[in-house]
Amino acid sequence: MRTARERVLSAALELFAEHGVSGTSLQMIADRMGVTKAAVYHQFPTKEEIVLAVIDPVLLSLTPIAASAARRRTPAARRRYVLDAVVDLVVEHRRLSAVLSFDPVVSRLVRQHPSMTVISELVELLTGPDPSPATRVDVAMVAGGLVMAGAESSLSDLPDETLKTHLLKTSLRTLRLNRS
Amino acid sequence: MRTARERVLSAALELFAEHGVSGTSLQMIADRMGVTKAAVYHQFPTKEEIVLAVIDPVLLSLTPIAASAARRRTPAARRRYVLDAVVDLVVEHRRLSAVLSFDPVVSRLVRQHPSMTVISELVELLTGPDPSPATRVDVAMVAGGLVMAGAESSLSDLPDETLKTHLLKTSLRTLRLNRS
Repeated sequence: MRTARERVLSAALELFAEHGVSGTSLQMIADRMGVTKAAVYHQFPTKEEIVLAVIDPVLLSLTPIAASAARRRTPAARRRYVLDAVVDLVVEHRRLSAVLSFDPVVSRLVRQHPSMTVISELVELLTGPDPSPATRVDVAMVAGGLVMAGAESSLSDLPDETLKTHLLKTSLRTLRLNRS
Repeated sequence: MRTARERVLSAALELFAEHGVSGTSLQMIADRMGVTKAAVYHQFPTKEEIVLAVIDPVLLSLTPIAASAARRRTPAARRRYVLDAVVDLVVEHRRLSAVLSFDPVVSRLVRQHPSMTVISELVELLTGPDPSPATRVDVAMVAGGLVMAGAESSLSDLPDETLKTHLLKTSLRTLRLNRS
């Protein structure tokens, strides 16, 4: 049995995917659920709080990833660890990721989020210090590719484990980290 | 001297990047330009017509790309041609691409667009017939990576030619099409 809070989040995410965050109102969420706007308001007084309820756990999970990665001995092991963990996260949230990653309202809330600095840390773990333009483009393409491919409807038939395996293999090849 | 039409498009794109298409109204566009809503309405009676004015030329440019690619003799030459052309297009529209690609309103208009079938053609030129899950993931990661990296603010210091060169090299490696 889902809680009232979970039902609001689920309806909100459907509507965000259809209309974007800016195009979704608390009234639309209430209509989708067949409840009054007051019932939605009781759980989340603003739309921003709904977005934060979705992105908070994802952003907070990045901090232990950066910390564990930093403890690996070699740059290659650190990169590999970050990629593994980010692929897991993308696949775990595969329906969510593209919808939320590129919404301007979500981008603003992410930029203001206390976990924001960890994203730069993860990028630097992948690029190394003073990266060349080639390395910066490699990492940007992998980051964008993971988020997009994770949510790509043409891949929705692939089971999570298959998707994970191939996302990781492709990312390692793009970043020239193949073990072979 | 820009035309009134071009000034509306420019203000609209700024606002789309900040608020998404759903979160932008004709009134907001008029306010940003310092004109009346009637003046905007005179150029574009609906917001959808503004979005179409932006995406139409991009989508229409895909048809000759698919046609030229199909005339190449080998699958590798066809893939290479499609990648070259798509990289050019992404870099030409580098500020636009991520903003518009992931907006739910834009996605709906693209899906209904007469040029839509050419996107499937381009994807099939890249994957070949009956692609494996590995190939489908490779192509999805390159497509997502190109659109995202093209618009990535952390790469905005790279000149167009540098960005093109590296996007193409990275894509070829990801798709195992390196000439080396």
